Formats: sequence, structure tokens, C-alpha cells
Amino acid sequence: MKVKHLKKYFLPFILLAVIGFLLVAACGGAGGETDAPESAAVSGDINAIASERGLTPADIEAAVRTYTPTGMHDEYIMFASGGHSGQMFVIGMPSMRMLKTIAVFTPEPWQGWGYGAQSTMEVLDQGNINGEEIRWGDTHHPALSETAGEYDGEWVFINDKANARIAVIDLRDFETKQIVKNPIAINDHGGTMVTPDTEWIIEGGQYAAPLGWEYASLDDYAEEYRGMVTFWKFDRESGRVQYDQSFAMELPPYWQDLCDAGKLVSEGWVFCNSFNTEMATGGVEDGNPPFEAGASQRDMDYMHIINFDKAVEVAQAGQVEMVADFPVISMQTAIDEKLLYFAPEPKSPHGVDISPGGEYMVVSGKLDPHVTIYSFDKVLSAIEAGGFKTDDYGIPILAFDDVVEAQVEVGLGPLHTQFGPDGYAYTSLFLEPAVARWTMGGEYEDLNEDPPWSLVTKTPVHYNVGHIATAEGDTVSPDGKYLVSLNKWAIDRFQNVGPLLPQNFQLIDISRPGITMPLLYDMPIGNGEPHYAQIIKADKLDPWEVYPEIGWNPATQSPDPNATLAGEERIERDGNNVEIWMSAVRSHFSPEHVEINEGDHVTWHITNVERAYDATHGFALPGYNINISIEPGETATFEFDATHDGVFTYYCSEFCSALHLEMVGYMLVKP
Amino acid sequence: MKVKHLKKYFLPFILLAVIGFLLVAACGGAGGETDAPESAAVSGDINAIASERGLTPADIEAAVRTYTPTGMHDEYIMFASGGHSGQMFVIGMPSMRMLKTIAVFTPEPWQGWGYGAQSTMEVLDQGNINGEEIRWGDTHHPALSETAGEYDGEWVFINDKANARIAVIDLRDFETKQIVKNPIAINDHGGTMVTPDTEWIIEGGQYAAPLGWEYASLDDYAEEYRGMVTFWKFDRESGRVQYDQSFAMELPPYWQDLCDAGKLVSEGWVFCNSFNTEMATGGVEDGNPPFEAGASQRDMDYMHIINFDKAVEVAQAGQVEMVADFPVISMQTAIDEKLLYFAPEPKSPHGVDISPGGEYMVVSGKLDPHVTIYSFDKVLSAIEAGGFKTDDYGIPILAFDDVVEAQVEVGLGPLHTQFGPDGYAYTSLFLEPAVARWTMGGEYEDLNEDPPWSLVTKTPVHYNVGHIATAEGDTVSPDGKYLVSLNKWAIDRFQNVGPLLPQNFQLIDISRPGITMPLLYDMPIGNGEPHYAQIIKADKLDPWEVYPEIGWNPATQSPDPNATLAGEERIERDGNNVEIWMSAVRSHFSPEHVEINEGDHVTWHITNVERAYDATHGFALPGYNINISIEPGETATFEFDATHDGVFTYYCSEFCSALHLEMVGYMLVKP
Repeated sequence: MKVKHLKKYFLPFILLAVIGFLLVAACGGAGGETDAPESAAVSGDINAIASERGLTPADIEAAVRTYTPTGMHDEYIMFASGGHSGQMFVIGMPSMRMLKTIAVFTPEPWQGWGYGAQSTMEVLDQGNINGEEIRWGDTHHPALSETAGEYDGEWVFINDKANARIAVIDLRDFETKQIVKNPIAINDHGGTMVTPDTEWIIEGGQYAAPLGWEYASLDDYAEEYRGMVTFWKFDRESGRVQYDQSFAMELPPYWQDLCDAGKLVSEGWVFCNSFNTEMATGGVEDGNPPFEAGASQRDMDYMHIINFDKAVEVAQAGQVEMVADFPVISMQTAIDEKLLYFAPEPKSPHGVDISPGGEYMVVSGKLDPHVTIYSFDKVLSAIEAGGFKTDDYGIPILAFDDVVEAQVEVGLGPLHTQFGPDGYAYTSLFLEPAVARWTMGGEYEDLNEDPPWSLVTKTPVHYNVGHIATAEGDTVSPDGKYLVSLNKWAIDRFQNVGPLLPQNFQLIDISRPGITMPLLYDMPIGNGEPHYAQIIKADKLDPWEVYPEIGWNPATQSPDPNATLAGEERIERDGNNVEIWMSAVRSHFSPEHVEINEGDHVTWHITNVERAYDATHGFALPGYNINISIEPGETATFEFDATHDGVFTYYCSEFCSALHLEMVGYMLVKP
Repeated sequence: MKVKHLKKYFLPFILLAVIGFLLVAACGGAGGETDAPESAAVSGDINAIASERGLTPADIEAAVRTYTPTGMHDEYIMFASGGHSGQMFVIGMPSMRMLKTIAVFTPEPWQGWGYGAQSTMEVLDQGNINGEEIRWGDTHHPALSETAGEYDGEWVFINDKANARIAVIDLRDFETKQIVKNPIAINDHGGTMVTPDTEWIIEGGQYAAPLGWEYASLDDYAEEYRGMVTFWKFDRESGRVQYDQSFAMELPPYWQDLCDAGKLVSEGWVFCNSFNTEMATGGVEDGNPPFEAGASQRDMDYMHIINFDKAVEVAQAGQVEMVADFPVISMQTAIDEKLLYFAPEPKSPHGVDISPGGEYMVVSGKLDPHVTIYSFDKVLSAIEAGGFKTDDYGIPILAFDDVVEAQVEVGLGPLHTQFGPDGYAYTSLFLEPAVARWTMGGEYEDLNEDPPWSLVTKTPVHYNVGHIATAEGDTVSPDGKYLVSLNKWAIDRFQNVGPLLPQNFQLIDISRPGITMPLLYDMPIGNGEPHYAQIIKADKLDPWEVYPEIGWNPATQSPDPNATLAGEERIERDGNNVEIWMSAVRSHFSPEHVEINEGDHVTWHITNVERAYDATHGFALPGYNINISIEPGETATFEFDATHDGVFTYYCSEFCSALHLEMVGYMLVKP
């Protein structure tokens, strides 16, 4: 059937909407007060207001450094992992306001993610494992795409530690476009990190298992269990990981943890830390040391140093073994081709962080009070010099003293290091808990007045900091200015909201040198547990306001063949298959009646024909677990079997206009 | 097998943890700066900092009125619906920080909601419809439990518009305990609201359908389609809706929208608004007026006035018809027993709001520029006087002029009214968009110096406000002080984050009389679309810090028979059924090895034996879609079939200690 439009019915409502928007426009960027004269004269009262609320002068300063009034945009945008929420969080800085949750591994109906829309179901299904629908993830380490070592604002990637998967998010529409399951590992941790031009996405492993996670007894741990690092080829043009051009490297069954790509002088190399080089296999129930003890016996673990450019050549030359149909460079090949070296690193470290110029690799052993700084030059010289000892698997071990540049004693439980633009580095201290500022030496020595390789100051945090993030901190030119401490416990920082408490992001001002490093803001995180974050200058992002054309398919980022222009809405039947082409516009769906029969298979396309910024419509279908979010221009498709007869009202689930409640239709399923 | 514990392995780590916590304790409530001397002297620089950031004097004041430094708790807590996210949001005020998302209708793995834990799967399954797992909701109107008309901080309820369900959340642990599917309706809207002592939870309908949502043609709309309001009996002792003591009332197929319970002088009555009294049935595709036009023809709709105390008597006397095995008072019985009256209300209103003393019912027709204030006294008198006209269904209609107390012209698109303590009322204006302050008359006239029943001022908002909420605004004694405008569109207020934008909560200071009503804060909402909120004084909440005993079952709020004390961990096998009793403590699970066979059915209990505040552990099982959040003291149980052989590492997904990464075990599934 063809849909007729009776424009006369809409005119009063279009008029109302126009009036509304003219009034909005008239308000312009005004702060929203109607009492402007008073507002302009209140500054004398500030101390009285502060005093009444119990604020100190430092609090007032912090308030003024972070408060971001209506319509003023934040200077930086943080992309934080969501931990076992499986999502990613987008946070404005310095206001520390959560701008968006991006659904990644976990269905989320506000975004219409995983509640019927084909474009979302297909991405989620890419992450299925052994045929099981895995519908959560443990997102850990977001990585913004880079061009020449600078964040470019085009893509962001993230891993799922629980299930060894990575996801690709398009920053034109802030939607997940691809999930890739690692075929050789059941868990990961050292991902995602990118090479300086985002040609490769790095995914390091965590808990060793037989490659392909096939069964093998723990008695055969040393022989059968393995670590790994996987290198995913990313194609910027298609916006997709190229599975066929990717490869992995077999590693000993130490627990690889976090990796970083070399940059500038060390570009072409990759560094990963590891722990449990003891190869403890646990078993507290049988009188063995538990993992926490067994994996913490040795004073040194191994930093992994990978000649990545050469590894790519080796993989491309076909010097690989296939595991689960995926190319893997074996340990022996890595040794033979001089792809892999170890350097001792103290003790159970969490990550290795490369200095902005690529000259230094910084490792913090969480059971050692120092940060240990390795020189890339010295690593190259040591490799050149040869004459190595090896580990039990024959992997060459560079001598600690040959490659270390410096050690700085920072405090208890050092975990993660970030860099500023001014020769300062920052390390989180889980146990104190605090963030330490210390100085780099060498090329960085003259950038501040503090002595090189020395602790400068610490700012206490609340409580138990894991990672930290500085503005543009993983690039070749960090901005400094702000540091965020990703604290794992909040305890008493906020109103108690039950036994499960939020985490606490603390914003620290690192814009001034020396001992001045005040806390600015506490931000509770009550919908996930972020592990890592990257912070980009906001003006590098340029997302679409609306989709480029009416009838856009976000999965393909191109026009959808089932786009429905106004006037072309219709319902077609072919046997038991019913296909619907629907339009959505303020404030009605067309058609408003859908009459089908019990047992029909229904394929339903909806196009949001709006071009107005923010004119999103939702589509909710009761009783069928379907909810779609249709942004301006988008065409969404979903399918279902009409298994139950009855009257079902579909309606717009995104409040779109004064007559939003009237944006409804009846689906009648005849028995 | 019995688990042996070797305490000596743990000592070094316990020591580290103790050092960490002592250091935390030493920091105390300090603001976190190490540069206290500077902080104490900065107040002179405030204007310079503000100027550099482009802040006005009004911005500085707003910053100081809202900034809440580390460790200082918010004065109020807002419970906001999450819209089609299906969740509820907990927000601190005046800082406007999101403290927690409470998972309600949608699975959420950070909270372990719907990812294996039996106590959560059972609640979600209560919401299944026609045997379908419905795993999202469209939460609209939270209602805090009340005692004598005051929020008491014990429970909060919320409805799912999409599927006509309500949920019960326990504020001891901020977890959802019950989902109830309405058996006669497929969608709702007018819920949840509570009676002044929370004996009843009100759920009004929305889009008319045959009761039980059975099939009936739209041609038979007037005869076969019906509206409804359902009254759910709530038992505070068990913390559950008593399905067997609940009942509904059949209403004409007008679209009931929002309800409110009478209070004080009007206690025992319930009021609902309605729209589409035109009984439009849509069908734009066939040349009919679309719903937005068809449902907006008449100048008056009907406020529903329900003698609720009497309705309870009628229901309890058995004067009901059973629909889908649920007792329903028929329209004819409602007429005969004088339970239901109508009063004309202008035009397509959104809700009816009862004044704090219960004297007035305020209705805003969104296509009429006035708020219309009805007098409860006049309603009683009109009922007493008799001599009514009736609608087509025979329901008596009170004459508009007999029951109206006043009308105040407030502006374009009035939607929702809230009250302050000072004779002011506030109405949201969707189309302007703005929040209007106007004065009540009668008993409220002397509470401020403005003339009664008159518009005082408006504060523009950005953009398109739906509901508003004032502190303790739905109680018999509103606090005023703060008002939050729940704006549906954000447009340019924040950094663009793609075509799907956040909503915008704007905090407005209503503490001062007259025209002073400044905007204080913009809060993006980027993980759902809240519709309504209630705001409680924070000190009325008293949640548990940890569960009362080790081995607590949150579903029953009592000790779990499968609680596992340290030293009692074990694995038992009975044929293909394997049952595991595990403990979790910083930083290991016990046991660390679980060896099973492919094809086994596994039942797994984990007890978090911690008593420390915030010492939550997670439990992630790769490849099996299982993630549990186990708060201190909790016992969780999950079951699965070991369908795939291999090596699966389970680990703690909540960062719990410096050796959190070592909190892991191996599940070995033999082929």
C-alpha cells in the first residue's frame, strides 16, 4: 500500500515547533539567568557563599578552574574504558562530566545497541565464542588512532580482557563498528595500543593458556601453555581490522600484561611487560601458594622487547605456524630471526610506558618502590653487542645494568607512568595511594628546574589509584595541564549508595612546575570500572551532527538500500514474510497501523527523515524485546517472528517534541 | 576435597595492604594538595583564573554554589529514571555528579546484573512476557517510598512504559528486588506513584488496548479497547508487591497519562490526567489524521478523579471481574459505586500534580498556555451536589467552572508542576523552553510577597524541558532550594559526541524569592533519557556499607544456605552435576583450579568473605557470558553447562588490591 500524506494536519504542530526554536534562538548563549543585574554584582558574596558551604580558598580556586557554564565546551575529551560494564565512557575535562557511554561489548537500549537493530546485532555477533553469545566485556585500555604519533580523533579502539576481543569505534558517529575475537587466546590484557600511524593495533595476552585455549593439564604448563601478542592490521579507509593481514607471536607462558609501541627514535619496536615469570600455577586448595604469592617470588620479571618491523617482514614472508587458522610466529622463529629479547624488570610490573620522544621505556614494578627507566639506545647497543644469557625457552636476556638508564624511588605500589610536556613524568602509587611527579633526564633535563631523575612531589589520592592519564599523554607531544587519577576505591568520598560503590576519578592540576600539583575535582564513576583512559584535545574531534544523507546505514557508513523517503512508506507481503518500510518524523511514524498474522516473519525498516541536529527518534516495540535509536538520517532494520497475537503499541522512545507522546502506532497481530 | 590454607604466603601482601590503608588514614580528609601554603593564599587570583577561562561573575557564583570538594557529601540525592536505558540513575546534588546507575530492567555486567547470578536472573525473568525474555525497559517515573507523605529513604519504585512493568528497589543495597508484569496492559505511563504511607503503588496506563492486549480490530476501538489504572499493594515487611492483593480499574480508552495520589486533605483519592479523549485511532497511511493531530482536536480532555479508599473497599468486597486472572473493577461498577468522576482539563495535559497540603490539583495542558488549578474542596462539593453530565461511557463529568480554583498563564507548552515550601509552584514549558515560577493562592498566599495565582518569573532552559523536580518536591513538605530541569535536547550545550547527543539536566537555584532564579549547572546525561526524578535529603538514606553477615543473599536479604566460610571451600560431584563452594578474599579465589568434564552441569557458589567497606570482588568467566559482582559479605550462585572443552581463566573483574591481577584461577574442561 502507498501512504498518503495530509499535510494540513501537521501545520499547527510545525508552527508550535518553529515558535519553540525561535525562542531558543532568541535566548542565544545566555547563561540562563533572568536576573542579570544581580549576577553581575555577586562577586563580593563569593566568600560568604563558600563559607556557608564549608569551602576553603583552595576549593574556590578548584571550582573556578573546573566549572564549565552552560554552552561552554570542555577543552579536553577523555575516552575511558568501562571495565566490566563492557562499554567506553566519554568525559569532558576539566568539568569531568560524562558526555556519553558508548556501547561496545554490552547491549544498551538507550543507544539501541543489541535490541533488534541489525547493524548492531551483527557487530555483537562478531564477538561470539564457541557459538555462545557473549554479551559483556571487560574493557581495559582505549587507544585513540594516531597520525605521526599524535591523536587524530578519527577512531578509538578497546580490548575485552575477559574474552580476548578488540573493538573498533568510529568517531564520526561514536559507534562501535567491529568486534574481533582473538582466535588463539581466551583472555587478553595488553591491548589496545596503536603504532604511531595506526597501521597496527597491539593486543597482548594475560593469563597463559594453550594457544587456541584447547584443553591441557596444568601439569604440562611449561610445555603446553603459552603467552602471546597479536598484531591486528587496521585499514583506515574501510575502518576495519584486516583479519587476513594480522598475525601473532608465541611467547613463553609468563603473563604478559601491557604493551606500548615505540615512537620516533624507537618506532618499529614494541615493548611489553610481564609477571608470573615464576610460572606459578596456583592451587591454594591443594596446599600450593596461591597465585598472588606464587607469582610474586622473583625480584625480576621480563620486559619483552620486540623488533616489530622485522616481525612484520617475517610474518609477511610466511614464516608462521597456523593456530586456529591464524598465523603465529613461533618462539623459535622469533629467536632465530632476532625478533624478541628480554630485559629484567623489577618486580611484577604493570605496563611499560614509552617517553614522548621514544628514548626511554619506563617500568614500575608494583612490588618495588622504584620506577626503572631503560634507554632504547642502550637496548640497541646491548643487542648489537650480543653474548646473552637466555631464559628456559632460549630467549635472549639483556643484562639489566647494560640497558637501565636510571631508577627513581617514587613510593609504594607504583603502577603506571604518564608524561607531561615539561620533562616531568607521573607515576601512580596504588598503595600510598598518591600520584608522584618525577623528572626525566637526558633530552628532557632542561625542560624544568628540578634535578633530573628525581622525585619532585606527590599528591595524595582517594583511594587506590590504578592507571593515570595526562592530556594527550600517550602522544609524541603530551599537553600536560591535567592529570586524571583513576582510583579504584571511593570508600567515604561520596554519599554511600549501597555496598557496591562508585570508583573515583580525581582531576589534578599539573600545569605548574615543581611542588604545585593540587587536586581539582572528584568524579564518581558509578556505571563501570574504568582501567585506562586517553585524553584528546576536544578540537581534534569532528563528529557528524547528523548522518550525511537521509537513509544512512551506520554499519556500512553509506546509503542503505532500504532507505524510506517520505511518501514511499509501504508494507509488502510475500507468503508469511512481511516487509515494512517506515518513516519517522516529528511527531509520527508512517504507517501508524501494521496488521500482520501470528506466525509471520517481519522485516521492518525505519528511516528517520529529520535533518535537525539532535532530532533522534526511538522505536520501542513492547513484548518483543525491541528498541531502536534512530539518529537523524539513519535507516534501521530489524526482524522478528510474530509469535504472539494481540495488540502491541509501538512508540517513539526518545522524547522528540511537544507531541512526542502522540508518536505511536498499533501493531495488530491476528491470531 | 577440603581446602588447606597456607597463611605464610599471604603475610607479605597483608602487610602491604595494611601499610596502604594506614597511609590512607594518615591523609584523612585533607583536600589532597601537597602545596597547602599556596592553596590558602590563592583567593586573590580567582578573578584572574575566571577571566582566563571566560567565566562571568555569575559563573563564579554558580561554581561556588555547586562545587563539592573531595570527601564532602552532597546535600540531596536525586533518583532519576533512565528512560529507554531501562535503568535508574542516582545523582548527587548540588554537585550534579552521577553516583550510580542502578540496573533495573536491563542486564548490566558491572553490577553483575543478568550475567549469571541467580538472584538477578530470577528478578529479570519475573518480567518475561508471553515467555519472551524482555531485557530492556523504558523507565519513566521513580517514586520514593513515603511515610506520612514524607520520603523515608527505604524503597524506590519505577515503571517500564514499554512493557507495563514495575520494579521494586531496596535502598539498603540499591538493588532491584522485584519486577511485576501488569497482566492486563502491554504499556503503561502513569507510574509509579505511591500513597502517602506506601501501602499502594499506582500504575496508570497509556495507549489503550483490549485488556490483556488480546487481538481486536481498531474498528472496534470504542467497544473493545480500554484504559486502566492498576493499584499494587506493597508490603514493607517483605519488601515485595503483593500481587494477590492488588487490583485494577477499567477506564475508557482515553490515553491515561500520569497520576498522583492525594495527600493530607485529599488522602484516599487518586487523580490521573488523560489525552486522546477524541479516541483517535491514527492511520496517516490511509488518509486519516495522524495521532499527533487526531488526538489534539478537542479543547478539553478529562482529569480522572478516583475515590481510591472506596475503590479498595469495592475490590476487597470482590466486586471485580477477572481479566487474565487479575481482579478489575469494571467501569460500570466504578460508576455505580461512585468511584470515578471526570473534570474537563485543557488540552492534552501531561500529568496532574497535587499541592503539598493536598488542597489543589494542578494540570498543564501542553497545548494551552495556562496551568489550571482545581480545588479538592470544590470537587467534593460538586460530587455532593450531583446532577452531572456523563461521557459516552456514562462516567459523570463535573462542570469545569464548579471545580476550578484558578488559571495562571505561564507560557508555551506547559508540562509538569512542582512545588516549593514558600507558596511558589514551578511549571516546565517545553516550547519556550523555560521553567516558570508562579504563586499559589489560598492557604499558600501569605508565604511570599508576590500576588497569588500569578506568574513571577521564568528561567530559560536548554533545551525542551520535560519534567522538573524540586528537592523533596512530591512530599507534604517540599524543601525547595534546588530545581532540576530535565531537558530533552542538548544541541550545542556540550562538545558534539556524534549524532546521538546526551540530554541536559539543568540545576536551578530556587532558594531566593521573587525573580531571582539563576541557573547553576548543566549536567549532560549520556547514558539514558531520564523522564522524571525525585530528590531526597541525603541524610534520610542509610544504606548498608557491607552486607550484614558473611554469606548474605541479596535476593532474600537473609543468610544464604550456600554461604562458604573460609576453610569450607569444596567441589562435589554427583554424576554429571558438579557443585562448587568458593570463597573470595583479597587477593585470591579458593579453589584456584576447577577441573570438570565437557557436558557437566555446574552450580557454582562464591562468597566474598570481606568485611571491609568497598571490598567488592568480581568474578569473570570467559567464553560463558558470566560476570558477577560480589559485594562484601555476599554469596552469589550461578549455573551453566560446560558445553565446550578447553582452558578458561576465571578472574576478579573488580580491581581489589595491588595483587588484583593475580586473583585468578583455571577452569579446565576435559574433552
